[in-house]
Amino acid sequence: MSALVASLDLAALSSAYAAGLSPVETVREVFARIAVRGDDHVWIALRPEAEVVGEALALVKRRAAGEVLPLFGVPFAVKDNLDVAGLPTTAACPAFAYTPVADAEVVRRLRAAGALVIGKTNLDQFATGLVGVRSPYGAPSSVFNSDYISGGSSSGSAVAVAAGLASFALGTDTAGSGRVPAAFNNLVGWKPTKGLLSTTGLVPACRSLDCVSVFALTCADAAEIAGVVAAYDVADAYARPAPPERPAFPRAFRFGVPRPGQLEFFGDAEAACLFAGAVLRLQALGGVAVEIDFAPFRATADLLYSGPWVAERLAAITPFVDEHPDALHPITAKIIGGARRFDAADAFRAFYRLEELRRVVAPTWDKIDVLLLPTTPTIYTHAELAAEPVLANTRLGTYTNFVNLLDMCGVAVPSGFRSDGLPQGVTLLAPAFADAAVLALGGRLHAALGGKLGGTSAPLDPARLPPAPVSPAIQLAVVGAHLSGQPLNHQLTSRGATLARSTRTAGDYRLFALANTRPPKPGLVREPGFAGEGIEVEVWSISPAAFGAFTSEVPAPLAIGNLVLADGTSVKGFVCEPAGLAGATDITVYGGWRAYLANLAAPEV
Amino acid sequence: MSALVASLDLAALSSAYAAGLSPVETVREVFARIAVRGDDHVWIALRPEAEVVGEALALVKRRAAGEVLPLFGVPFAVKDNLDVAGLPTTAACPAFAYTPVADAEVVRRLRAAGALVIGKTNLDQFATGLVGVRSPYGAPSSVFNSDYISGGSSSGSAVAVAAGLASFALGTDTAGSGRVPAAFNNLVGWKPTKGLLSTTGLVPACRSLDCVSVFALTCADAAEIAGVVAAYDVADAYARPAPPERPAFPRAFRFGVPRPGQLEFFGDAEAACLFAGAVLRLQALGGVAVEIDFAPFRATADLLYSGPWVAERLAAITPFVDEHPDALHPITAKIIGGARRFDAADAFRAFYRLEELRRVVAPTWDKIDVLLLPTTPTIYTHAELAAEPVLANTRLGTYTNFVNLLDMCGVAVPSGFRSDGLPQGVTLLAPAFADAAVLALGGRLHAALGGKLGGTSAPLDPARLPPAPVSPAIQLAVVGAHLSGQPLNHQLTSRGATLARSTRTAGDYRLFALANTRPPKPGLVREPGFAGEGIEVEVWSISPAAFGAFTSEVPAPLAIGNLVLADGTSVKGFVCEPAGLAGATDITVYGGWRAYLANLAAPEV
Repeated sequence: MSALVASLDLAALSSAYAAGLSPVETVREVFARIAVRGDDHVWIALRPEAEVVGEALALVKRRAAGEVLPLFGVPFAVKDNLDVAGLPTTAACPAFAYTPVADAEVVRRLRAAGALVIGKTNLDQFATGLVGVRSPYGAPSSVFNSDYISGGSSSGSAVAVAAGLASFALGTDTAGSGRVPAAFNNLVGWKPTKGLLSTTGLVPACRSLDCVSVFALTCADAAEIAGVVAAYDVADAYARPAPPERPAFPRAFRFGVPRPGQLEFFGDAEAACLFAGAVLRLQALGGVAVEIDFAPFRATADLLYSGPWVAERLAAITPFVDEHPDALHPITAKIIGGARRFDAADAFRAFYRLEELRRVVAPTWDKIDVLLLPTTPTIYTHAELAAEPVLANTRLGTYTNFVNLLDMCGVAVPSGFRSDGLPQGVTLLAPAFADAAVLALGGRLHAALGGKLGGTSAPLDPARLPPAPVSPAIQLAVVGAHLSGQPLNHQLTSRGATLARSTRTAGDYRLFALANTRPPKPGLVREPGFAGEGIEVEVWSISPAAFGAFTSEVPAPLAIGNLVLADGTSVKGFVCEPAGLAGATDITVYGGWRAYLANLAAPEV
Repeated sequence: MSALVASLDLAALSSAYAAGLSPVETVREVFARIAVRGDDHVWIALRPEAEVVGEALALVKRRAAGEVLPLFGVPFAVKDNLDVAGLPTTAACPAFAYTPVADAEVVRRLRAAGALVIGKTNLDQFATGLVGVRSPYGAPSSVFNSDYISGGSSSGSAVAVAAGLASFALGTDTAGSGRVPAAFNNLVGWKPTKGLLSTTGLVPACRSLDCVSVFALTCADAAEIAGVVAAYDVADAYARPAPPERPAFPRAFRFGVPRPGQLEFFGDAEAACLFAGAVLRLQALGGVAVEIDFAPFRATADLLYSGPWVAERLAAITPFVDEHPDALHPITAKIIGGARRFDAADAFRAFYRLEELRRVVAPTWDKIDVLLLPTTPTIYTHAELAAEPVLANTRLGTYTNFVNLLDMCGVAVPSGFRSDGLPQGVTLLAPAFADAAVLALGGRLHAALGGKLGGTSAPLDPARLPPAPVSPAIQLAVVGAHLSGQPLNHQLTSRGATLARSTRTAGDYRLFALANTRPPKPGLVREPGFAGEGIEVEVWSISPAAFGAFTSEVPAPLAIGNLVLADGTSVKGFVCEPAGLAGATDITVYGGWRAYLANLAAPEV
């Protein structure tokens, strides 16, 4: 297979399949690579290779029968707190294990799209931790240095992708479990908006906050996978229907960075430099850096483990934990056991505090489109973590713990390497349902960095970017009283419309000064065959709702139709009913309404 | 004063002021009426009459100086868990009392609008109860029979309005405290959408659920007061900005009623009959009754007191309750003390259950526009309540407890009297932010019943109705391929547009079959002076956003302008650019596009 495909990223795999590769070969190569890595603590359960080969053969038949399979033959790994029918779900706690009869809904959707489950991956027990060492199945390591932790809780999922054992992997992300291991393995980690991906078939950590997440080699891959897995699941009480897609961030997007003194790297000077590099790359992409107050975000982060949300972790495994008091990893037992000190009144008091913090944070989004943060302050060795198992974990959540509490979405992307070869990451964050916009910007930021994919030797293709979300804005050409500075321009600006460009119509338009209009208005009339100079127009960008309200106010004889511009493109614009031209004066010679008005105002000579 | 104004409802008061009444006379009359009633347990604190008279005189000067005072000289009462500067706030617990320096935000807004605080009213201690007897300040009674309870927790506020001691009163409503006492005193009780009215300056009961509520004599009064008090308060972490106003319910609105067997009146057969009467009145108003499954609503109601939300009540008065263990009413102490058995994990488990119930309830709103329920199953005497203080209270919440948990708004309106002279009420409920729509329908339902206002002798004026919320829908006339049954009609229906009416244009329009259009399209052209029969059009009702999207798809030479209809009104509609008429055929003689097409299809004769 390696002759046909060096990387399992979706573009490479798709090209290879188009060139004749069989998904059976992919499966065999994946299992061979897994065998070569040996006991890397990545997998809790692998499917039998023959079974996956059989499924690959079935895929070939399905496709031959005309089925559309957007993830045809794409191998993926599943964190072992998500159900895969027939494989035990352990949540890294053997005594807790059960064997589900149905796939988790996200797994079902991926398999229906042609993706192939390779196996179940290791995690911090019950997804409690950001380190990847709290598991009886061993501790995976960063693909770049076996002395260093992989990050967690989705430890095995991240390493599987970074090591080239899967095209992508499902993780989960409550406090940062889908982002921290991405940072430590030079990967993309998409933390979707809460409720966008189904959690049916997930062992809860904090059910009110849990998200299924995606590890991928590129943002473009993550966006493709998003198209398959993001679907409202009526069976999931925490699912939320997605509102109409948010547009891409503006060209001159504003990105927030913490004020000087609010960035914390716990002494990792190289991490600080790498973050400064990411700021420069975003600026080079047209972004404007805006300093924001990070204090309320940190205060929110502190709520997650010091507050009653840890009781959700307890609720998730009660009565199991009462019946099996010795089944838990000692650190996990200590953390989750801490929940018993919180009563229901404490829980409500913490919710009140969270609402207050949300109110404090909200105006930040008037000043910025997206927030740029280090994914983690630094990385730790296995030895450092063993010495400070809780403190180090807490530090790793500095830039991740608040995200779900504040209902944000984001994507962790690679941000380069320290001189010792260990990777750092940054995360782009935005309010809920801006997933497509953050993935699109994440792809550009990753492309600006370049380098290799995960821990593989395959280079990032800087030209392969996620699609920018389509802006629903409508382009509207105005020609008279709505031009900038003219008396009705406020009908555009008060509705949030923005001036896109000033240009001219095609040459076959005439301009008339209409009789009996107040304020005076022109009428634009297309006359096929007329060869003029075109008429001055401004093109404004306006939302459909604002456009609807604007159009509803346009008085007769004017109407909103279509205008052909000088460059041959067509936009919405003002036209005129035939009856409105009675008594009108042809002012085409002035080339535009402003020139005509200036001439009216000029003293007679 | 009684010569000038028999009732304190806003319309009567406004007319009396216009006829020369002074607000000083109103204040003196109110205090005289209060004195006549004597010790009715309605008030915890009254302001000194001279002070209110002074404020009334100041109002006269403010108005003379040109200030607009929409509630000029309107006397109102304030439940004693809301702050009025300078008066103690007791929450019906003397040991808890404090004297605030600032008005609660809702009180501040009312006073700024010219309303006059008369005093602070009695309540079930800490707003815990639906009965009105759990107070060291005594138990008010229904204005109709002193053997019967007033309902609570906003007991004094309701009786003050029903007895003609105030034009309206502020209550609060967490579990039904703004609705149950309205039912027992023949009043309107508006339970606003959570977060619509500020809770700044309120002693919390369940802070995540608390609403300030309004008792009024009519829905029209409640709607006027809503216009003053409903305002986003950035200082209130639970405040929510109101989205664009929901339109009124459709003319043939669908109202839900519980399935047979799911209505519970605990043996009160007359209450059952009175509810049936309300169903008939709503049907007579054009409503279509739809049976719904009330079970998930009841299951949600059961969560409120049996679940951890009672811990919010404990959180609200900790550490006070620890320092003053004997300060609480014994029943209140028992209920709130019960919160101590819930830990934080219990709280989260209850939230999960609530999310599941919300999901079960949600599809109900696809079948109905509004829900009609009895406000209470029955009413109790003081003696009955003393015998079963908790059970009777629980029963009274049958139709109210779930409302805030399910994020609904509603209005309780009078629904007639049992043969023993005791009133029953019904409540109209809808999802959040339909406040104006439920008040408008409540007003019509109340008018259909008629009768007296509260416990006064003043008749309800059936002609004084709250304004129906203005629908933001745009009226769009279509003439060709978008007509019902024509090939582009789906561009309207898929966007939620509804057919409003079929009519004709004014007589001065001609219709042309345009050349080279696909599907074939007509163009409508106004020709001033032409005296035709008008052209067949359909007028569709469409939201601004959908209209914007629709208009953006209209191809040249068509455009969206304005059409004058046969009745002389103007709506948005299809017009045609002059250039588009080249090669077009005048088909005005057919009177419409459908007739023209039918003629084309007809066999030659």
